Amino acid sequence: MTVTVPDALRQEVLEANLAIPAAGLATLTWGNVSGVDREAGVFVIKPSGVSYDRLTARDLVTVRLSDGAVVDGDLRPSTDTETHRCLYLAFPSIGGVTHTHSTHAVAFAQARRDIPVLGTTHADTFNGPVPCTPNLTPEQCAEDYEYNTGRVIVDMLASDDDRAAEVPAALVAHHGPFTWGSGARKSFEHAVICEAVAEMALRTLELGSPVTPPRHLLDRHYTRKHGPGAYYGNP
Amino acid sequence: MTVTVPDALRQEVLEANLAIPAAGLATLTWGNVSGVDREAGVFVIKPSGVSYDRLTARDLVTVRLSDGAVVDGDLRPSTDTETHRCLYLAFPSIGGVTHTHSTHAVAFAQARRDIPVLGTTHADTFNGPVPCTPNLTPEQCAEDYEYNTGRVIVDMLASDDDRAAEVPAALVAHHGPFTWGSGARKSFEHAVICEAVAEMALRTLELGSPVTPPRHLLDRHYTRKHGPGAYYGNP
Amino acid sequence: MTVTVPDALRQEVLEANLAIPAAGLATLTWGNVSGVDREAGVFVIKPSGVSYDRLTARDLVTVRLSDGAVVDGDLRPSTDTETHRCLYLAFPSIGGVTHTHSTHAVAFAQARRDIPVLGTTHADTFNGPVPCTPNLTPEQCAEDYEYNTGRVIVDMLASDDDRAAEVPAALVAHHGPFTWGSGARKSFEHAVICEAVAEMALRTLELGSPVTPPRHLLDRHYTRKHGPGAYYGNP
Amino acid sequence: MTVTVPDALRQEVLEANLAIPAAGLATLTWGNVSGVDREAGVFVIKPSGVSYDRLTARDLVTVRLSDGAVVDGDLRPSTDTETHRCLYLAFPSIGGVTHTHSTHAVAFAQARRDIPVLGTTHADTFNGPVPCTPNLTPEQCAEDYEYNTGRVIVDMLASDDDRAAEVPAALVAHHGPFTWGSGARKSFEHAVICEAVAEMALRTLELGSPVTPPRHLLDRHYTRKHGPGAYYGNP
Repeated sequence: MTVTVPDALRQEVLEANLAIPAAGLATLTWGNVSGVDREAGVFVIKPSGVSYDRLTARDLVTVRLSDGAVVDGDLRPSTDTETHRCLYLAFPSIGGVTHTHSTHAVAFAQARRDIPVLGTTHADTFNGPVPCTPNLTPEQCAEDYEYNTGRVIVDMLASDDDRAAEVPAALVAHHGPFTWGSGARKSFEHAVICEAVAEMALRTLELGSPVTPPRHLLDRHYTRKHGPGAYYGNP
Repeated sequence: MTVTVPDALRQEVLEANLAIPAAGLATLTWGNVSGVDREAGVFVIKPSGVSYDRLTARDLVTVRLSDGAVVDGDLRPSTDTETHRCLYLAFPSIGGVTHTHSTHAVAFAQARRDIPVLGTTHADTFNGPVPCTPNLTPEQCAEDYEYNTGRVIVDMLASDDDRAAEVPAALVAHHGPFTWGSGARKSFEHAVICEAVAEMALRTLELGSPVTPPRHLLDRHYTRKHGPGAYYGNP
Repeated sequence: MTVTVPDALRQEVLEANLAIPAAGLATLTWGNVSGVDREAGVFVIKPSGVSYDRLTARDLVTVRLSDGAVVDGDLRPSTDTETHRCLYLAFPSIGGVTHTHSTHAVAFAQARRDIPVLGTTHADTFNGPVPCTPNLTPEQCAEDYEYNTGRVIVDMLASDDDRAAEVPAALVAHHGPFTWGSGARKSFEHAVICEAVAEMALRTLELGSPVTPPRHLLDRHYTRKHGPGAYYGNP
Repeated sequence: MTVTVPDALRQEVLEANLAIPAAGLATLTWGNVSGVDREAGVFVIKPSGVSYDRLTARDLVTVRLSDGAVVDGDLRPSTDTETHRCLYLAFPSIGGVTHTHSTHAVAFAQARRDIPVLGTTHADTFNGPVPCTPNLTPEQCAEDYEYNTGRVIVDMLASDDDRAAEVPAALVAHHGPFTWGSGARKSFEHAVICEAVAEMALRTLELGSPVTPPRHLLDRHYTRKHGPGAYYGNP
């Protein structure tokens, strides 16, 4: 049975995928974005290994949340589809997921280090370090590998939806960043910011022993953009 | 009461804002430029959180210097508006202010280090290191945070307009660069140069223990572009 | 005697060459891609020192595999032609070769270090480190220098076609990367990936003592894209 | 008296200047290229402080080699004009000069270090390290500063035209690179290569203690592009 999702969702997912190479976050076909339709119980995701310059809305694949079955689309979905599905199931508040292999975020993942909070650029979006998972076990790699890639993120965050909302990004050890948000576009923006703060953090560390920013500064920045007292942006 | 500023000022502020992403100094909606009309007692600034690719002159917001009230425009002004206002009030000679989160300048801010003077590229524009402020206190963060962000710059420069003119840039600790100039365009150019010299300085430091350039070389470069004996450029 | 190759091959070689500057892998006229026609016993390669912005399919040069003689084309072939020829002769399974002086891969070559496997980005394509050759001897430099540049790669891989397929890239000491693949386009893609993983590796090393990724993770990534169990991509 | 130079020279100088920002070597109005007409005893150079996007052939300034007098053009020539003139007078074989503040070459200049020869990319063009001058003395800065900036290069090369031809680039301490060549275009290409090899060298040094490449490899690369046995390129 084919499940049809609103055109607006397909369009948002398409545009967020196309924004990845435009933002310099992807090499070749790397990277993927999805967006969920909670009511229909499905999400829409990029097909596997299709080059960005010939990607159209028609190529997107619709996948059922409950079991990962393809319910619309002619192509095979991204190999990372099961990771997206795992995150959607664990964190009910998220509406979009993005995965990239952006250079500096990958460097932290390869060094198996969190991206530390060194300034307001980070605190504007992420209320704490972007955490890096431990390694997947041989068993987690042997079967349901992609689902387990989501699993190590979910376990690291203790399946806590609030934590996922406060720091909408994680690094999978020796792999790279996954980010999420209220929708596909927001998850993409968090991927952009994750890479930007990773690069800034790396450059800061190059300048010598890191200096811890004061907690009151970070809190101020996070809360001016998030929560009931937020006053950033225009409707 | 609506205050109307000359179209030329709005145009200059618009163009300087649009030049930020074109120069690679901004991610997403980050960064903002303003320009002041001293006679009218107002300045024009980018609205908060509007994406650069749909920013028009109509979106700009006019703010009163004396109290920060919006006197023209439908949108909320940049969250950094009060920082701009503080700088305009403290330094009567400046006509434009730019704020970015450019990567290398932020790295120095996050390391809480001045950008040192290592060569003529720096000395051509900045007559001394680009200084980094101390941290804001908890009190400065708790109330009037954005105004106090300007305050720590003003205090660092001892409210000295001449010092502000000689080094038209500062780093706010764990935040990023603010630059200024005779107008909006000039303040933007100083943001570009601040980032360029920050990157050069970081690369130089990577090459080992820094070598101090001779004072006579730096003075020569600064004075050939500034002051009565300047001979750089064309009218 | 002129040997004519299929237009499709010439077109693929042309496009792969033009993709080099577009991908930021080349400065000026540096870099070259070739594609082979095993049946005709020839390969098609970029001419020497021609700038990318005026390169056309007509300029490509066809060279005989057995002796390196030019069998079609008005221009002199790339100075690296003999290196390509050596690789085609040693590794019967390869259909395309790319050479670049991309920055980070060259940095590893200049440091005479392999590009280590630090994560899945690397393991997705290369089943092991990208190895760096020893120096060419004075004799290898004195005569048939370009052919010997291929020779040191072939010797390092013990003339093993399987090894060449598992890690389709090598660094020539103090020179730079050569990559190969099933065709011209694939060899170019491997050049892109070689540069990307070199940059990621360098940034990871900047973050401190490297952490070895678990073998089971790397194997999983390599085998999901290669071999009988591969499930990445769309036909 | 106005001296008219061939249109082809003005066009080459214009294009070489416009190529500077296109190659990412310049910030704002920084950088300049000139080309000489030895017979007419003049050279053509970029005006001072004019932005690249409105630079036309009309804006170029013609300067007399013997005394630096402007003999054609309405604008003031580049402030670096006297440096160019000094190099033309000292090295009769050169036909073009380029000056930039490209990031990595400046980093070496600011660290007062030569760009070392670490591989064939360097040796293809520069037959030895790109040398960095000592500091200018207070006297050299006080009077005829720009001419003396050329003077320290000429002195470092012992006024040896052959040395200038073998390594057509130099770094002025705490300032940046000057490059030259048979004409304006060639001097620009050497500026591009100088920046590329500076970046590669810096990245190589990041990877640890540098490894010296064997002399026979470097010689081979230099001689295959230069001198009677050269076999690179097409006519």
